[in-house]
Amino acid sequence: MTQPPDAPDENTAADLPVVRLKPKSKPQAIRRGYPWIYADELVTDRRTKALAPGTIARLEDAERTPLARVAVNPNSKIIARVIDREGRGIPDHAWFVARLKRALALRERLYDAPFYRLVHAEADGLPGVVIDRFGDIAVIQPNAAWADVLIDPLAAALAEVTGVTTILKNAGGRGRTLEGLDAEDEVLRGSAPEGPVEVAMNGATYMADLTGGQKTGLFYDQRENQAFAARLARGEDVLDVFSHVGGFALAALANGASSALAVDGSAPALALAEAGATASGVAERFEARQGDAFAQLEALGAENRRFGLVICDPPAFAPAKPALEAGLRAYERVAKLSAPLVAPGGALVLCSCSHAADLAAFQGACLRGIGRAGRRAQLIYTGQAGPDHPLLPQLAESGYLKALVFRL
Amino acid sequence: MTQPPDAPDENTAADLPVVRLKPKSKPQAIRRGYPWIYADELVTDRRTKALAPGTIARLEDAERTPLARVAVNPNSKIIARVIDREGRGIPDHAWFVARLKRALALRERLYDAPFYRLVHAEADGLPGVVIDRFGDIAVIQPNAAWADVLIDPLAAALAEVTGVTTILKNAGGRGRTLEGLDAEDEVLRGSAPEGPVEVAMNGATYMADLTGGQKTGLFYDQRENQAFAARLARGEDVLDVFSHVGGFALAALANGASSALAVDGSAPALALAEAGATASGVAERFEARQGDAFAQLEALGAENRRFGLVICDPPAFAPAKPALEAGLRAYERVAKLSAPLVAPGGALVLCSCSHAADLAAFQGACLRGIGRAGRRAQLIYTGQAGPDHPLLPQLAESGYLKALVFRL
Repeated sequence: MTQPPDAPDENTAADLPVVRLKPKSKPQAIRRGYPWIYADELVTDRRTKALAPGTIARLEDAERTPLARVAVNPNSKIIARVIDREGRGIPDHAWFVARLKRALALRERLYDAPFYRLVHAEADGLPGVVIDRFGDIAVIQPNAAWADVLIDPLAAALAEVTGVTTILKNAGGRGRTLEGLDAEDEVLRGSAPEGPVEVAMNGATYMADLTGGQKTGLFYDQRENQAFAARLARGEDVLDVFSHVGGFALAALANGASSALAVDGSAPALALAEAGATASGVAERFEARQGDAFAQLEALGAENRRFGLVICDPPAFAPAKPALEAGLRAYERVAKLSAPLVAPGGALVLCSCSHAADLAAFQGACLRGIGRAGRRAQLIYTGQAGPDHPLLPQLAESGYLKALVFRL
Repeated sequence: MTQPPDAPDENTAADLPVVRLKPKSKPQAIRRGYPWIYADELVTDRRTKALAPGTIARLEDAERTPLARVAVNPNSKIIARVIDREGRGIPDHAWFVARLKRALALRERLYDAPFYRLVHAEADGLPGVVIDRFGDIAVIQPNAAWADVLIDPLAAALAEVTGVTTILKNAGGRGRTLEGLDAEDEVLRGSAPEGPVEVAMNGATYMADLTGGQKTGLFYDQRENQAFAARLARGEDVLDVFSHVGGFALAALANGASSALAVDGSAPALALAEAGATASGVAERFEARQGDAFAQLEALGAENRRFGLVICDPPAFAPAKPALEAGLRAYERVAKLSAPLVAPGGALVLCSCSHAADLAAFQGACLRGIGRAGRRAQLIYTGQAGPDHPLLPQLAESGYLKALVFRL
């Protein structure tokens, strides 16, 4: 064993089970920081298959050289996730405290108020774990088995490090299905908020429904892109399609937009947007239209409406590879239907949160749509998720969000 | 001829010379908005070769269908640049006024003060023309022959649209050599400023030397990236390598950095940075070191210095394809030498303004360097040039600036 003599976890970690890469699997990627081991890369003997989902183990290469500490889930295609380097510890209270302190330090450098994504999974050293913070409330999404198993020490460390008094478990993540986990939400600490929670962001006040039947939530990933779009909004009529709880519309109004029309298919989301407009003191300039976004775009086109700023932030049309072609056609259609609604010299914000559509493919679809609408465009801004959504550079897949701002 | 009957320039444009694409050249790209025609795509008969550099002409496809208005330069590899669509006008005073008004409208939406890139060449409809504005002063870089020929109507329109009182011509652009143009600077309007000009940006005051012997100038393209880095600077010691006139260092100090050390090879640039620090009221926290950046990075490493924020914004190591490999090695070396200077949990900003190194290649070089320094990184921000440097989406080459912010 090459474990260094000063390894701090010598005693506690000695009894960890061992899992081993197949001879053909390349350990270099793991050594360079790639965090996932797929089922076909691991020796899945009976012993490994029998490990309980979420078991912490030692990963060795085919020559039995220790590589890393991993969390194993025999039920998942990602059969092991790197939790820490070899000899560096196992996820106990102190380990969680250290990871969370490191994550918190970045957010406290970036934001004045405690509203942000506190933990963004692999990139923050907590594979599969997403934690959003709303002031005194934190919402954990444990999207990997190990975090489900260790949710209690994680929640205890979270309360200690951040001082949050309420901790909710949101088990609705798509990833949990892939890990074979249930969808049971829980209140882990404190008591669930009675109604929507106020979130101050980009000069506006948003309403986040963290526990209601619809669990509309609130997404922090567009904050920087919403801030940029808001700079273009002063004195303009704004159209926010797929508005959800009004992310772009309320930021635009708070920054001096003349009016904002929010379009969404969800009545509860629009109700939260309206409540947010009231809380932000901009209700007089805010209007909501419920309905299918494509139909609404067509209707606004038929009405010859023009806006100085149009935003389309649809759900993922191409969440995974098989949906890519249809997804790109849908993005092209959004661009084609929205471009005619942009006044000459106005701006069009087109977003994609599809993992499968990379930036070049998405930009191509947008340009085809704009071109088919008979418009030409300058590209003035390319945005990603904000810095509270860091990326593990080894994991290209994690850069899912794209926001392009065109001037027509 | 398919020119529409309502073409506004029927009379003025009737006498324009005609140039024609070769039969094999594909006109589709031009129709979709691609703005360049290379010498081997055009029928270069004696008549075309005899056109004076900068001549405005009609471009036709091989079947004599009109495609666009172009500016021809038989001395350039880019033998023609699309100036306007067919039937849309020629560059006279009114035409320049319209283009400049459109460019100005975007900047006035984005910025509170008149300090920005006003015209960014093709993307702003003025191929090869760059105009930077510093309050009442504008600096034109006519990097294509047609703009040199039409510099007087351009300058007149610029004064009319913006109200600037001084217009300087900067003929130092690399592009002018490729176009066979001279390097003679001129004062086109008003009188050259006596000394450096104050530029307010990101809370700091910068000093721009627009006319001095060194012609240090000031680059607006990093403004958004400097603003982001400054958010990470509060209470930190900051190292700004290849600092030029202090772009990152002064923004960091204005945003509460404890100290900033600027390193650059140019004594005049550092003198301007120091003057900027004084003008910003942060001189006490500012220090400058002149010298080769690589040597200085090694020296700081040998001194075991640590900074909460390190920025390296070098000149283009890979300006063109042949220099790509050596350029990427140089970026890797910058990363390898700078990563050890970052305190644990601190941030490293690595920039490239190389056209030839795309984002993926540059990011790969940075990660190799960080890895070879024994550090691991989160990627928290990917920035491009600011929105006053719009891109023509058809011209992928124009996205030259990359700024990556890693947390180590």
